[in-house]
Amino acid sequence: MLDVSLIGTSGMMPLPNRYLTALYLRLNGRLLLIDCGEGTQVTLKSLGWGFKNLDVILITHFHADHISGLPGLLLTVGNSGREEPITIIGPRGLSHVVKSLLVIAPELPFEINIIEMQKPEEFQIGEFNIKSLNVEHGMDCFAYSIYVKRLGKFNPEKAKALNLPVKFWSVLQKGETVEYEGKTYEPDLVMGDCRKGIKISYCTDSRPVKRLVPFIAHSDLFICEGIYGEDEKIDKAREYKHMIFKEAATLAKDGEVKELWLTHYSPALTNPKEFLNNARAVFKNSYCGYDRKCVTIMFEE
Amino acid sequence: MLDVSLIGTSGMMPLPNRYLTALYLRLNGRLLLIDCGEGTQVTLKSLGWGFKNLDVILITHFHADHISGLPGLLLTVGNSGREEPITIIGPRGLSHVVKSLLVIAPELPFEINIIEMQKPEEFQIGEFNIKSLNVEHGMDCFAYSIYVKRLGKFNPEKAKALNLPVKFWSVLQKGETVEYEGKTYEPDLVMGDCRKGIKISYCTDSRPVKRLVPFIAHSDLFICEGIYGEDEKIDKAREYKHMIFKEAATLAKDGEVKELWLTHYSPALTNPKEFLNNARAVFKNSYCGYDRKCVTIMFEE
Repeated sequence: MLDVSLIGTSGMMPLPNRYLTALYLRLNGRLLLIDCGEGTQVTLKSLGWGFKNLDVILITHFHADHISGLPGLLLTVGNSGREEPITIIGPRGLSHVVKSLLVIAPELPFEINIIEMQKPEEFQIGEFNIKSLNVEHGMDCFAYSIYVKRLGKFNPEKAKALNLPVKFWSVLQKGETVEYEGKTYEPDLVMGDCRKGIKISYCTDSRPVKRLVPFIAHSDLFICEGIYGEDEKIDKAREYKHMIFKEAATLAKDGEVKELWLTHYSPALTNPKEFLNNARAVFKNSYCGYDRKCVTIMFEE
Repeated sequence: MLDVSLIGTSGMMPLPNRYLTALYLRLNGRLLLIDCGEGTQVTLKSLGWGFKNLDVILITHFHADHISGLPGLLLTVGNSGREEPITIIGPRGLSHVVKSLLVIAPELPFEINIIEMQKPEEFQIGEFNIKSLNVEHGMDCFAYSIYVKRLGKFNPEKAKALNLPVKFWSVLQKGETVEYEGKTYEPDLVMGDCRKGIKISYCTDSRPVKRLVPFIAHSDLFICEGIYGEDEKIDKAREYKHMIFKEAATLAKDGEVKELWLTHYSPALTNPKEFLNNARAVFKNSYCGYDRKCVTIMFEE
C-alpha cells in the first residue's frame, strides 16, 4: 500500500491558508517528495510523516513556487538526523540551481545525488519506480509517474519442481536470490506473474499535451494542475502555459485514470469547488485537492 | 506614528503555527522589513499591509531562517506592481547570497540596490533612519535600530524676524527650502529644536554583548531574541551564540528601553509564556512576542 498526501494546492505564491503545490508519498516507511516550494516543510511538519526517511525529491521545473523551499527543507532533514544521501532529480541545470540555493545551507550532514534529465527517463529509488515525461510550460518541465510493483503470488508447484530444500522457499518468496550446490536460483522461478501495482501520476505545470495521455494511462490517482476553474479562462491558461479544470479532466478521461485531484490553483481562485463541475462534466471522478488531502492506495485484491 | 508588526517568532525553522522571526515597519505608508525567512511573505500577506511600498530590507545574517524567503518575497513584490528599486542591506557577501538565491527569480521588474556592511553604519532610506551594530553570532551578524525623527515645533516669532511673506511660512513648516529675493531660507530657521522621535531596536541572533546597551538605549521598543526561556539553558545559548530570556531582559534593563518583546524561540520552546517571569524578574516590561503582534507607536505629546 502507498500513502499519498497532496501537501499544498497553491500556484505562484504560498497563501495564508494554502501552501504551494507538492506531493508526498510514503511506501514502507520511505518517503518521496515531488516539488518543494516556499513553506513545503511547514505543511510536511503538520502532516507528521517525518523528514528523516526522505530518499528522493523530484523537481518538475525551476519556477520559484516549485523549488524555493529546498534549502530550508534540506536543513530540516539534516536536523532530523539523516546522514544517508538524498537523490534530487530534475531538469538540466538542476546542479547549478541546487548549488546556488544552498549558499544559505552550506553544511548538510548528508550527500546530495543530483540527476539532471534532458529527456524522459526511468529510475528506481528504493521501491519507487519513477518515470518522467517532458511537458510544455515554456521552460524545461517534467511530469512524473510513480509505480509500486507487486510481485506475483508464490507458486509452491514451481518451487517443488526445483528440488530445492524447503528452507529456501521463503528466501525466494521474499525476492532474494538463493545459492545452492553451485547453482543460482532467482525468485521469479517460484513466483507467478507480477500482479497489478499502484500508479500515481503528477503533472504541473503544463499545457495538456497529447503525450500525457499514455503517460498517465490507468493511474490509480492522477494529480494535475488546474490553475483556473472557469472554461472561459482557457486563453489565459494557454498564454501562461497552464491548464483549466476542463483540460485536466479531459486528460484524466482520455488516460482512463481512476481518479483526478486538481491542484496548483491561481491565488485568485479562492473557492475551487465552485468550478468543480467544469471538470466533472468531462470526467466524473474529478475532485478538488486541498492541503494535506491524503489517501492510502491498496493493492487490488 | 510608526506601525510595528513582529511578523514571526520562530527560530531555526518555520513551524505550522509559528513563522520565522522578522519585523515589518510602516511609516506614512512606506514599508521596511528586517529579515525574510521561509514563509515570511505568507505572514506578511495575512497582515495585509501590502508589498508594493516595501522600500528596504535589512538582513541580520545569512543563516537560512533569516533569508530563505527572499526570492519568493521579491517575486510577490514584483507581482504587486512595484517598479521602483528596493534597497537590501546586510553583511558583506550579501551580493553573492542574493544573486545566488535569485537563480529562481531571474526576472524582477525592479532594480535591487545592495549595500554590504563590514562595520556599524548609518543610512537614511525615506524617513527611516537606520543604524547597524555588529553583534556576536559566530558569523557576520548585525543588530539594527530604526529612528523616526520628529521636527521641532514651528516658531512664528522666528518666521516674523526673517521678514518673509507669510505665504512662505507653510512651505518652511513642511520642511522645504524657500528661495526669495536671491536668498535661500532653510526650514530650521523657523523651527524649534527637533523633538523626541521614535526608536525601535532589533537584535537577533547574538550573545548579549555589552555594546548592545548604548545601541538600544532608550528605545520605545526593543525586539530581542530569546531562544530559550529557561535560565539553566544558558550554557547551550552560549554554545550556539544565542541568548536566554533573562539575558535579553538584562539588556533591556541596562539600555533603559520602554518595552521588550521576546522572539526567535527554539522549536522546542512550545509555550514561551511559561518562562516569561524569568525575563520579568529582571525587566518588568518584558513581553512574549507572537506572530503578527502589532503596535502603533505615537510621538510623545
